[in-house]
Amino acid sequence: MQKNTNTEKNKTAPFELQALAGGGYNTDVDVSPASVSTLDRWLARKLLGLLAHPPFSVVLWNDEEILTSTTKPLVRVHIHDSQALHQLLMNPALHFGDLYSVGRVQVEGDLLSFLIATYQALKTAPPFRKLNKAQTYLFNINRPRLNKITDSRDNMHYHYDIGNDFYEGWLDCEAMQYTCAYFPAPEMTLEQAQRAKLDHVCRKLRLKPGDRVVEAGGGWGGLARHMAKYYGAKVRSYNISHQQILYAREKTKAAGLDENVEFVEDDYRNISGEYDVFVSVGMLEHVGREHYRELGDTIHRCLLPQGRGLIHSIGRNKPELMNAWIEKRIFPGAYPPTLREMMNIFETHEFSVLDVENLRLHYAKTLKHWLARFEQQAEKVEKTFDSAFVRAWRLYLTGSIAAFNVGAMQLFQVVFTRGANNDIPWSRKHLYPTNESD
Amino acid sequence: MQKNTNTEKNKTAPFELQALAGGGYNTDVDVSPASVSTLDRWLARKLLGLLAHPPFSVVLWNDEEILTSTTKPLVRVHIHDSQALHQLLMNPALHFGDLYSVGRVQVEGDLLSFLIATYQALKTAPPFRKLNKAQTYLFNINRPRLNKITDSRDNMHYHYDIGNDFYEGWLDCEAMQYTCAYFPAPEMTLEQAQRAKLDHVCRKLRLKPGDRVVEAGGGWGGLARHMAKYYGAKVRSYNISHQQILYAREKTKAAGLDENVEFVEDDYRNISGEYDVFVSVGMLEHVGREHYRELGDTIHRCLLPQGRGLIHSIGRNKPELMNAWIEKRIFPGAYPPTLREMMNIFETHEFSVLDVENLRLHYAKTLKHWLARFEQQAEKVEKTFDSAFVRAWRLYLTGSIAAFNVGAMQLFQVVFTRGANNDIPWSRKHLYPTNESD
Repeated sequence: MQKNTNTEKNKTAPFELQALAGGGYNTDVDVSPASVSTLDRWLARKLLGLLAHPPFSVVLWNDEEILTSTTKPLVRVHIHDSQALHQLLMNPALHFGDLYSVGRVQVEGDLLSFLIATYQALKTAPPFRKLNKAQTYLFNINRPRLNKITDSRDNMHYHYDIGNDFYEGWLDCEAMQYTCAYFPAPEMTLEQAQRAKLDHVCRKLRLKPGDRVVEAGGGWGGLARHMAKYYGAKVRSYNISHQQILYAREKTKAAGLDENVEFVEDDYRNISGEYDVFVSVGMLEHVGREHYRELGDTIHRCLLPQGRGLIHSIGRNKPELMNAWIEKRIFPGAYPPTLREMMNIFETHEFSVLDVENLRLHYAKTLKHWLARFEQQAEKVEKTFDSAFVRAWRLYLTGSIAAFNVGAMQLFQVVFTRGANNDIPWSRKHLYPTNESD
Repeated sequence: MQKNTNTEKNKTAPFELQALAGGGYNTDVDVSPASVSTLDRWLARKLLGLLAHPPFSVVLWNDEEILTSTTKPLVRVHIHDSQALHQLLMNPALHFGDLYSVGRVQVEGDLLSFLIATYQALKTAPPFRKLNKAQTYLFNINRPRLNKITDSRDNMHYHYDIGNDFYEGWLDCEAMQYTCAYFPAPEMTLEQAQRAKLDHVCRKLRLKPGDRVVEAGGGWGGLARHMAKYYGAKVRSYNISHQQILYAREKTKAAGLDENVEFVEDDYRNISGEYDVFVSVGMLEHVGREHYRELGDTIHRCLLPQGRGLIHSIGRNKPELMNAWIEKRIFPGAYPPTLREMMNIFETHEFSVLDVENLRLHYAKTLKHWLARFEQQAEKVEKTFDSAFVRAWRLYLTGSIAAFNVGAMQLFQVVFTRGANNDIPWSRKHLYPTNESD
């Protein structure tokens, strides 16, 4: 397993924010406290106005508080220099994350409440929405992400190869699932809910002993091992993250499952062979809209006539690009599709969609568990990386809770077969066994 | 209730096929037996060739049989005159139905097997598919169906006002459901399965006493009465079929439910008021793709913030126009959408799709029940209408079984709420109560 320490920097390290902290973002930044001008005050009011006067105040670098209503603000947003204020006004979706990470913007009060209020304000503030849309669009033009096979490898390396140790610190200990868990009973632990998710997926696929499964984007191998161990399936799992593959192979061998689970370090487009089951949990977000047909072609090539398929992905109710900062700092090339967009995978080859389930609130709950565990590890993470890294991840996890909570993000599980396959169950009752807690 | 008899013809009578029977389709048709030319034989072979040599033969009007393989044909298709042969070649999707209805084309052997084999042949015969597509397209250009409010009324009158007695003869006796039933246990009777469907819909909507429900396209009022009687809901049901409304009001009064169920003879676009639940079972097929946004606007206008919605509709895996003959003779203006197309209802106002279930095989089974009951009534129906009407309905019901059986048609139930509504269940287990047969 890879060990990341403060002294081991390389050019693909995901967070290069430390340069920002001392004003290195633009070389002419002056972050030393300075006087507040009339223009600064006007701009701060403008910022709050764009958000349709949300329930928070702005505290400027001279401790002057800008309020837009007489009620006590929910949180106070501290802006520590004038350039930070200007950047926030120019492209808040992009710059807030970086400025927050390096501490040039701080939130006094509950970060989650602040982010939920911001999402809700964005929804009802038309000028801001337009502005934000235009900026996101421009931002995207500047940084085209074609997700060709080599791009995909770089993107995956960027996020998933930052260290298995890091993820082990706050994901569930059993299956290392970095995807939405399933809480049929809301009081479940994260471990129980991730196991319930794996079973839910296996039941949806009506997995049985001897089934040949191909997995696209297998993470640390948790689903593949679960399918082999509890359902007797033979799994071939594709992944382009080198670190994940190494970890997955080691774990699988230790569990004595390596005869039935094979990990292939390759792109989903290179899947070969024929299978009873196609499954992909949490990869589609990284595929890119332009490639959905290729994914459909891949499934068409590899799925047997009576085969079953499942795709699990973050999604949207309406097309919208990924938040600019998350796309830049956390998930390069990521895009959460709408159900309409997902149909590009299925329509060309006339796959039949049998079942769609939206697990949106389950992701908010999963993320709450992750954030709580992450906070317990924060000190250790700061030692390995730095404080900007910790703040960036705190913002990313908290912001994601907010996004799923307010309905800005969805989680779709889509079950499908070939159009002419009549071997389909008469009800979905088998997904809800009566002798289990779920 | 309207009584249709042979002597009661009017200009909107749905079947005007009797004119065809005596050669009146084109005035120059000669249906008397005539000699078979070399060209006729060549055309008959061409017809079978277009279908990629399906497992059936063509028997020409001089009893000469055209075979394309040495194996015994599954069925024999008798073509009784040369013009029928020419019409079949020119536009089989459109003309087969009319020619079959008036008896100028007959099928010797099992009609369902023939139609299933035809569907399968169409899937694998590329030249035919192209031809068929072009013809359907041209056909559609010739007969634009804008489904404005007045068109919709005409279209509904055409199909649903042909007589409540007629539908009573072969639909389930309890709820008069002219939509897909739900057979969680395949051996259920039609009455049980229609009741199970109504309960499945009510459970998906988490219907509770006092809920205000608006229904778009309420048929004979079966769902509205079920919701009021078993779930204590207050239902306002919109429908533009006059005959159905009269029937629905009478039945509802007789059941003592008229205080809680109101029928409004009006278009879905004119729905007023605010509701906890929006439901539409079997109307979307008649709405027309161009109007999905209007339907979304209607739902947006009338659904309360915590409201739930369900749309149940025939659909497709890939965009394709309704079979030309069915669109012409049975369902004017009808179009079965893909899931992608249905999203036009939901995206504009950012509704959140929570659950999609595909009940394709349930519709094949429902139609088998309908066909069996229809055949028991065939003699009576022939006396009321005529033999062409009976054959047309036999073809329509049998062809629909085939379409759902081979996967050419789907049945989607889509559950949705507003995007920001967090009052959603943690699992779909409540749809599968353990103390019931389903």
